[in-house]
Formats: sequence, structure tokens, C-alpha cells
Amino acid sequence: MQTYKVVLNEDEIPRRWYNLAADLPHPPRPPLGPDGNPVTPDQLAAVFPMNLIEQEVSDSRWVDIPEEVLEILYRWRPTPLCRATFLERALKTPARIYFKNESVSPPGSHKPNTAVPQAWYNREAGISRLTTETGAGQWGSALSFACSLLGLECKVYMVRISYDQKPFRKTLIETWGGTCVPSPSPDTEFGRSILALDPGTPGSLGIAISEAVEDAVGDRSGKTRYSLGSVLNHVMLHQSIIGLEAKRQLEKIGEKRVHTVIGCVGGGSNFSGLAFPFLNDKIHGAEIDVIPVEPASCPTLTRAPYTYDHGDSAGMTPLLAMHSLGHRFIPPPIHAGGLRYHGMAPLVSQAAEEGLLRPRALSQLECYRAALTFARTEGLICAPETSHALCAVIDEAVKAREAGTEKVILFNLSGHGLLDLSGYERYLSGRLENHVLSDEELTASLAVLKDMPLPLSRQADR
Amino acid sequence: MQTYKVVLNEDEIPRRWYNLAADLPHPPRPPLGPDGNPVTPDQLAAVFPMNLIEQEVSDSRWVDIPEEVLEILYRWRPTPLCRATFLERALKTPARIYFKNESVSPPGSHKPNTAVPQAWYNREAGISRLTTETGAGQWGSALSFACSLLGLECKVYMVRISYDQKPFRKTLIETWGGTCVPSPSPDTEFGRSILALDPGTPGSLGIAISEAVEDAVGDRSGKTRYSLGSVLNHVMLHQSIIGLEAKRQLEKIGEKRVHTVIGCVGGGSNFSGLAFPFLNDKIHGAEIDVIPVEPASCPTLTRAPYTYDHGDSAGMTPLLAMHSLGHRFIPPPIHAGGLRYHGMAPLVSQAAEEGLLRPRALSQLECYRAALTFARTEGLICAPETSHALCAVIDEAVKAREAGTEKVILFNLSGHGLLDLSGYERYLSGRLENHVLSDEELTASLAVLKDMPLPLSRQADR
Repeated sequence: MQTYKVVLNEDEIPRRWYNLAADLPHPPRPPLGPDGNPVTPDQLAAVFPMNLIEQEVSDSRWVDIPEEVLEILYRWRPTPLCRATFLERALKTPARIYFKNESVSPPGSHKPNTAVPQAWYNREAGISRLTTETGAGQWGSALSFACSLLGLECKVYMVRISYDQKPFRKTLIETWGGTCVPSPSPDTEFGRSILALDPGTPGSLGIAISEAVEDAVGDRSGKTRYSLGSVLNHVMLHQSIIGLEAKRQLEKIGEKRVHTVIGCVGGGSNFSGLAFPFLNDKIHGAEIDVIPVEPASCPTLTRAPYTYDHGDSAGMTPLLAMHSLGHRFIPPPIHAGGLRYHGMAPLVSQAAEEGLLRPRALSQLECYRAALTFARTEGLICAPETSHALCAVIDEAVKAREAGTEKVILFNLSGHGLLDLSGYERYLSGRLENHVLSDEELTASLAVLKDMPLPLSRQADR
Repeated sequence: MQTYKVVLNEDEIPRRWYNLAADLPHPPRPPLGPDGNPVTPDQLAAVFPMNLIEQEVSDSRWVDIPEEVLEILYRWRPTPLCRATFLERALKTPARIYFKNESVSPPGSHKPNTAVPQAWYNREAGISRLTTETGAGQWGSALSFACSLLGLECKVYMVRISYDQKPFRKTLIETWGGTCVPSPSPDTEFGRSILALDPGTPGSLGIAISEAVEDAVGDRSGKTRYSLGSVLNHVMLHQSIIGLEAKRQLEKIGEKRVHTVIGCVGGGSNFSGLAFPFLNDKIHGAEIDVIPVEPASCPTLTRAPYTYDHGDSAGMTPLLAMHSLGHRFIPPPIHAGGLRYHGMAPLVSQAAEEGLLRPRALSQLECYRAALTFARTEGLICAPETSHALCAVIDEAVKAREAGTEKVILFNLSGHGLLDLSGYERYLSGRLENHVLSDEELTASLAVLKDMPLPLSRQADR
């Protein structure tokens, strides 16, 4: 029987997270406050608990995973490292294609890797209620799941377009005991202001973040904090478990070298989780092609400048050094709701600036085509977000066939698509369209950045 | 870190299926043809390929699993054996609760355990197209998945009520390349006859089976056969891999004795898969309480007679010796669509007659309540079918607390509920109702049995 799936024994599982900030050639730029000075931990304390703020600003290479967090994570971890032999055969490629199957978690994606530690650290800090935003719903359900297991309340502001497209995400969040409202909502001042301007707005992650932050900061009892599912350094830290496991699994089956690492990017968390431990090798001399893949409708890494911008639409968060389409950007309603964010994780943005990444932007239809190929060969139905990674994987595997090179491609199967079948339904019935951001739309969206301090670079033509 | 999840190495996985027929105190009664005589393999050859017919009538205790079937099954198998420590804690029970997590397969249930070998044996026999029925959609998607991986065409007749309740099951089936129509359909003579009588009928598994059999038998090219996801002996055989793995996993962590084995029953396949290897021990002297759990709205084992009856509504199949509510039974529209079958697997029925089982019937609301407890403690959202097993598990665990006995309970988490969230949504919003079969409805439904040969027993009051 051919080895298809690699598991790890308990003594082989990673017990520390990896922090790329310790190895980047240049240290990441700090978040700035409204006065243009770096924010202090105290200024963030109304939003996050101090133990997570310490992780956010940490430059330690390794951070121990608390035992109780490990106990929960290892209910579904280590996730299988699988070899896509059926896909390889269908593509007639000499490449060996491996993927980390993060879809096996109860919420169906990589998101609980950080939801569980975030809920745990908040509980340790005496917090009893978390607020958050969600796009496609993967993050909102993951946080509701984690809060349920750890005994916290959870309120989710879900981007309206996704809330309408995916009604069962709300049911999932509620089954785990959380509450879920469409964003913009009448529950916050910012939500009300947006609804007053445009009652039919599809919403955006930026708006939903503003609402969740306003809710947390506004709770006078001090028992509520905000939780973010991507973008921030501590989220990237928690996700590093994916790549750390993958390295041990590849080692275990004697794969000495990975040539290409691929993940889809919205805020950057699943990509970072897989790629950062490999970027460490790259920084120290290994030749690895590392490809973040974003939607052509929300081309943060490929067409937006590296600058300082807010993480949310209302401008309530500190300014983050990142690639950004402008914090008022409202992306087209593609099905990959988790990739519709105006910014990009500062650590991913910095890695791109350092020349460590080769970003790509792909359109919706080619991604669904790739997802269908994968479903009909490997049998797995991936999330619309994940289909972006898959499309790039197939491209690379075909190139390997044309070049006759026996390379190793590793990608992150960040989630399954069982709660996103409406996109597949539209694709199968020929009713799905592409959305590519026009130059005019891009220019209009970037206008909001003109008042930002320190425009760091312009890479619109890269 | 507490051991929660037990996996098996490749050299520990079962390579043979177990056949309970070899160990039952009395051999199972044969299927009968229209003339009242046992059907011959040749009479079944228009419906099933000969290699599966051989398995159907086999009395060998062990059957080798073909290498290529193993290779596919072990893409998600061995499924984890998990200990529900959070549920134990919430119930304050001294019982140790274990479950086999069959929901980790790509279609999300135990069904591909038999879909893959059935597709494989059909392909070996030169068949290129399979027809089938599906209730909740778990089986239809599993067969479409298996056909996709093995290169066969697949047509699914889906019970109308489920087709309407769960539109995304069709998308799932089509994503894997199968086709799916609501049953009764205009595609078959029997479907048209039912639609003519009652255009608004919710349909039933019995009707859908008739349509799928008619389609297969009617294909003059000889390249189409019918595939059944439960009830038959070869299906129970293929599912035995669940219990065989569970025994090795329990052994591996030093659990020497299982006191209670629980599974939900519709046609009987997931229950058999887990329970039959343990029934073997029971037949040979072990004390084990084995509990099949069915819905109170479709009480086949608890209120229906053990008799000969057709497997389908049109009376196209041979007569099977089984508990049956009558082949024209149309069950109430409960959400556990997979448990709405009028009959029960002959091997399960026979085991019940031998006194090896302690069947229970539970109502929908108490089962959803149990599912919610499980979701909010263990974090897993189970299928509505599986909630019946869970409800009985919680009952047994509470009894163990009251009696102060430290027993081991094992159950089958047969599938996840991510494609069945409409039931959860109705439950959470207080819009779900119970359906208990009245004595009058039962009597009316059993009337069709009066002409059957050999009524074997009457157990309505058991």
C-alpha cells in the first residue's frame, strides 16, 4: 500500500510555536497610534488581554504552547500530511504534491489553531466574553467553537454578503452557543452610521472589525475583549503549528527538500502558518519558491502599496505597516469571503518586501475549475479560499511536467467547502462570474491612504 | 497531555472484513423470490455484479480487502478512536465514553466504507455506471465520491423530502460528477406512477430504491448495476472495518473490556459496522450490552414484526427476512433522513431475534438536545442520525453515575451534521416537533404484510 498520509506520534508533535519576527532580515515596523508614535502595550489593553499583547510584540523565536491548549488542539491535530497521488496521475506530472489537511478540525478549517489559544489566554486574563468579525464564517465559527469548549461568551459580526450567502454559518455559530449578527448591524454606533449611508451595503471585513472593536471597548465591565482571526503577529505565531508539523511529517517519510510552498492569502494566517517555518530555512539559505495566492478582485500583495493603514474601516485600530487597498475598500462579492480583506498581515507584507515571496493573483473561475479537478481526483471538496492555492499548485505541477522536473510542492488545504456549496452550485450551473479590480477602482480605493504617515513603497506595477 | 485520540500505524490496520453470518447461532434466512423459493445468484445478476453477490451469500468469517480498496480507504482511515472527556466531565459520570469518528471521511460519514468497495467490485466486473437511492444524502454523496475516484458514472435518486430540506447534497453529488434527481422522479415508470397518485408526496427510501433498481435493470447495455448503501449482508461486511479498528485501538490503550456498544439504526449499516465484531465476542461469552437506537417515528426493531418483506416500495426486490413496518410505509418527515427506512438489515434483525441486542426508540427533540450537549462540550456537530446514538450514550452515562459504576461505553459517531444544519436551526429556534408513530398508523402500515410468506414473529409489544 502506497504511503499517502503521514501522521505523528504524541512525542513528535510540536510543543512550541515559531515566530518569524525573530528571523526576518529587518525587524517588522511597529504599529502606530493616532499621534504617529508607536503604540504602547497599555494603549492596546482595552482591546486585547496583556498576555496576547506580549505575544504580539514578542521577538522570541519560540513560544511554548500551554499544555491545556495542546490538549484541545490535539483532538484533531496533527492534521494529516497527504500526498495527492490521484491528482499527480491526472496531471501526468513528475512533481510530488503534498498538502496539510487543515479541514479536519471540527469547524472545518485552520482557524481554531488560533481561536483556541486566544480564548484560553483571554480566560487566563479573567475575560469572559469575546467579540469578533467574520467574513466567510470560518473564523466566526472557529471562535464560537473555542469559546464553547473554554466557557466564554462569543459575539460574531458577520459580513452581510456572506451572512446572506451562507445562512448555515449562523446556525453553526449558534449551535456552539455564540451569537451572530450581520454587519453592518444596528448594535454599534459605527454599524448604524454605515446603515444610514447605505442600507443595502454588502459590508466588509473592515466594517465588521470596527463593530467588534467598538463592542469590546465599550463594555464598561472590563470583561469583554476583541479577538482577530488573522493579520496580527500573535495569530501568525499560533498558526505556525501547521508548518512545524509539516516539516516533521516530511522528514518522517524522507522528503529532504521542498521546492515550492503555496497558500491562499486574505489576511495571511493560513499561508503564514504553513510557510513561515519554511521561510526560516529560506532566510538561512535554502532555495524555496514561496507563493501566496490572492484573488484578482482583492489584489493586496500584487497591486496595493506597502504603507501604514488602519486594520478596520472606521479607523479605530492602530496603523499597521502592511500592503493595503485602503481601509474603506469594499471588495466585489466573490465566494472566497475569507480573502476579501483590504490589508495583509504585517509579517507577510514585510516578508514580501524582503523579496522572500512570489505573490500571485488569480480569478474566481479558474480557481473553481481547479477545485473541481481536485474534488474529482482526490475526493476532497475545498473551501473557495483554498481553491486559490490549488489553482497555483496545478499551474506549478503542469510547469514541472513541461520542464520534466521532479519537484516537491507543498500546499495548505486550509478548509473544506461543505458550508460553501452555493459557490460550487453557481459554478456548476454556469452562473459564476469573474471580478477583476479595474485601475480606476484601485485608484479610488487607494485615495484614503494619501493622509497616512510614511508611505513605505509603491508596488502597484510589480 | 491526556490521551484523547488513538490512531493506528499502517501495520496495525485491519486487512480483512468480518462477516457476522459465520458466527450467528442460527444461519440467516435466505432472500426469497416471487415464487417463495430462495433466490439464486443468477436471479440477482441483473441488479448486482457476481463478485458482490458472492459476498452477499458468503458464510466465510473473514474476507480479504483488496489492496486498491485499502489504498483509498486509508486516505481517511483509520478513523480516530476518541475519548469524550469533556462530555464525561459535563455529565459527572465515572463512565469512560469512546467514539469512532467516522465523520472524517471526505463525504462526512461511514458510507464510503462500502461505497468504495462496491464501486471497485463493479468496475472489476466491467460495470461502468451505478444507480442508487439516498435518504439524507449521505449515501448518495458517498457513492458519487467513490465513483469519481474509480471512474464510474453515478445516478442518485434522492428522497424528495430530503432533496428539498438539503439542497446542497445535490451540489455535493454533482461536484463529484454524479447526477441527482428527487424521487419519485419522472425518469422511471414506478416514479411516474407514484407522482400520478400523489404529486406532492415526500417520497421514501423504498420508492427511491424501486426507481434505482428499475433504472439499472432497464439498461440494455448491461453496463449499469444498482448499489445499496445499507441493509444487505455485503454492506454490513464492508462496514465491519469500523469495529475491527476500534478493537485494536482500545487494545492499544489498554482498555480490556467494553460494557456498552451503541449505534443509531436506519437500515443498520453504521451500527453493524461498529457492533458486529463485538457481537462476535458476545456470542462467544463476553458480557456486552449492545444497543441499536432508532427514531420513535420509524420504530422498526422495537415495534415492527420480524417477517419476510420487500426491500423497496414497488416490490421489485426479493423478500428479505427482517423487521419491517411494511414496504409501503411512508415515515414522517423527521430530520434524520437516513433512519427513515421501513425495514432493517437481515443480519441486524436476526441478531435481535437471537436476543443479542437491546433496541431502543427515541424521539427527535431529545436527540437534538443530546446533539447540542455534545457540540458544546466536545465541539463536534453530529448528523441528526447520529444524535440518536448520542442520546442513548448520555442516558447510559447518567445511569453509570447514578449507579457509581466505572463502565466503558463505545459509540459510533457515524457522520457530521454540517450539511444538515437546517434541523439544528429549527431546533434552536424552537420550531422542531416530535413525531411518534401511532398504533393506528402502525396497524395500517403493517397491512401490506398480510400476504407475505412466513410471518416469522410478532414483537409489537416487546
